[in-house]
Amino acid sequence: MDRRSFLKQAGLAGAATAALATPAIAQSAPELRWRLTSSFPKSLDTLYGAADTFSKYVAAATDNKFQIQVFAAGEIVPGLQANDSVSNGTVEMSHTANYYFWGKDPTFAAACSIPFGLNTRMQAAWNYHGGGNDLLNEFFAKFNMYGLPCGNTGAQMGGWFRKEMKSAADFSGLKMRISGFAGKVLTKLGLVPQQIAGGDIYPALEKGTIDATEWVGPYDDEKLGFYKVAPYYYYPGFWEGGTVIHVMINKEKWESLPASYKSIVAAAAQAVTTDCLAKYDHVNPQAIRSLASKGMQLRAFPADFLAASFDAAKATYAEISATNADFKKAYDSMMAFRNDAYLWWQVAEFGFDNFMMTQQRAGKLS
Amino acid sequence: MDRRSFLKQAGLAGAATAALATPAIAQSAPELRWRLTSSFPKSLDTLYGAADTFSKYVAAATDNKFQIQVFAAGEIVPGLQANDSVSNGTVEMSHTANYYFWGKDPTFAAACSIPFGLNTRMQAAWNYHGGGNDLLNEFFAKFNMYGLPCGNTGAQMGGWFRKEMKSAADFSGLKMRISGFAGKVLTKLGLVPQQIAGGDIYPALEKGTIDATEWVGPYDDEKLGFYKVAPYYYYPGFWEGGTVIHVMINKEKWESLPASYKSIVAAAAQAVTTDCLAKYDHVNPQAIRSLASKGMQLRAFPADFLAASFDAAKATYAEISATNADFKKAYDSMMAFRNDAYLWWQVAEFGFDNFMMTQQRAGKLS
Repeated sequence: MDRRSFLKQAGLAGAATAALATPAIAQSAPELRWRLTSSFPKSLDTLYGAADTFSKYVAAATDNKFQIQVFAAGEIVPGLQANDSVSNGTVEMSHTANYYFWGKDPTFAAACSIPFGLNTRMQAAWNYHGGGNDLLNEFFAKFNMYGLPCGNTGAQMGGWFRKEMKSAADFSGLKMRISGFAGKVLTKLGLVPQQIAGGDIYPALEKGTIDATEWVGPYDDEKLGFYKVAPYYYYPGFWEGGTVIHVMINKEKWESLPASYKSIVAAAAQAVTTDCLAKYDHVNPQAIRSLASKGMQLRAFPADFLAASFDAAKATYAEISATNADFKKAYDSMMAFRNDAYLWWQVAEFGFDNFMMTQQRAGKLS
Repeated sequence: MDRRSFLKQAGLAGAATAALATPAIAQSAPELRWRLTSSFPKSLDTLYGAADTFSKYVAAATDNKFQIQVFAAGEIVPGLQANDSVSNGTVEMSHTANYYFWGKDPTFAAACSIPFGLNTRMQAAWNYHGGGNDLLNEFFAKFNMYGLPCGNTGAQMGGWFRKEMKSAADFSGLKMRISGFAGKVLTKLGLVPQQIAGGDIYPALEKGTIDATEWVGPYDDEKLGFYKVAPYYYYPGFWEGGTVIHVMINKEKWESLPASYKSIVAAAAQAVTTDCLAKYDHVNPQAIRSLASKGMQLRAFPADFLAASFDAAKATYAEISATNADFKKAYDSMMAFRNDAYLWWQVAEFGFDNFMMTQQRAGKLS
């Protein structure tokens, strides 16, 4: 027996011994208790609730062996530090809108939602079948994280304004509470973005410290009561055409999971992508009616504001792409899909919706 | 000790003994090999493939302990007998479009897609959060089945026509291969529905035995080559605004599953609802471009045809509802949601898409 085959045999024997020493069952279904920190408060029951649903799916699939305890924003760390605590291993998981972390790198915004990006279904198409998830995970790995889409809000609203907005010029000097990356784009139109925590928005709007705020959509917005102090409710929230919520996992922790648990987590997250969106799509129709009965004034954004914002977004993407290869890669991949996706969208999908919306306006659906 | 508490104690003791006799591990993770019969041929890789993805998710989540072998239409039973074989226990599962079974009961069509019903996202909202799944499972139980949505095609195309269609009158006497329930509705306009298996459609269309056919959408349709013999491609397929594909499970078999397996199956099916749709949304944009380069003539259905079909559908639903309580219950529940859902759809979602589609047509997305 030569030395090499001896080592080989010894190695094989060693592997067999190791396998015997650790019963297969213990390897494949360990008892785990993980913590997930949400970026959302419990009052956002659609978003906070999506993490709860995710956790329940995983627990039920593993006979409660893999338990993920969900903490609301602020219970362990503030909502906007959720990913930091995953990166450094304080918690195993977060559930978040990645654009909150655009200040670290705008590629986080591309992972979540950027102005005039993809709509909800296109976002899923790109993530699951257009290489999006793999591409983003190359980026997330630099922050010691692995990410899976786990929820979507659908197209959001443009928010609540104290005064009616007649043209793009009205947005110059406007103090608006708006999420970070969209705010950066809109500074090109003179808008003055404000960062204010959820609970502080209403008094700021009431006093006139700010002129406008965006939040999510009818169901979530109604609870905060903005319609009482800023009744003009604008659409569409073009910076959130189909906001992807992710579950972010500490990379070593993810890699330590047995294959079956990885599969369970991935399927649960993909299932929650459907479930979270389905909940929004079920509750928003009632909420918009309810808001209308309370004095909300529904308005479309002025056309010149949309056009100027579109140009501002394009200019912003060009600036970032010039210096940030990760952003450029994600952005270019999305854009390569966007044009044909919207060409096709105009045919069967819009053809169907357009007829149905026409019937709705004619009172023929009730 | 009175007789009642004696029995109670004896019962408890018996249960404890039974629990001890069967190790917990064997109960919670049994080795199972099930068969799933698909209603789709392998060539429909999006639909057939969805069952394959579902099976892989379940196997991976259970360390291959729960294996579901997927058979294409015809391998065990013909595609249109898939549910019969589940009802009678020949196989444990099917993967199917339930409207194939509308002849047994039109409520099966309501479970899948009916003309001018809900769009894809509304369908998910109604199924998962509007009580749809529970309501349909009361009905499926009468056929000894339990059903879970497991895929969606998105809005389909109206199909391929040998001649251009100018008005509703052109559809009178038209011989069209069209799925059963939609065919029933369109007979009110004089259309003559034809039932032809997938492989026989092309020659029938070529010879002029039929004047038109519908199938699915660009990706699936391109493979069958209809554009060569019937180049007018009409939209929207208003009888399939968001076709729900189900995995149907023999009821006793479903109930025999341990709780963890039920959860794994349910999450896998919900995940595949996203995954199947995402695949369609990824491949259809390329396919419509490809078809355009091959001579396809894209056309919108004439407005008077849509209007007459809408009225015909409404009349059909009234007729069926008069005699079929199950259909009425499902239909009324969907319709109660439809009006407000389409009211809301016109705001953020359409507002966003409309702007983006306008940019697409202006060549600003490429």
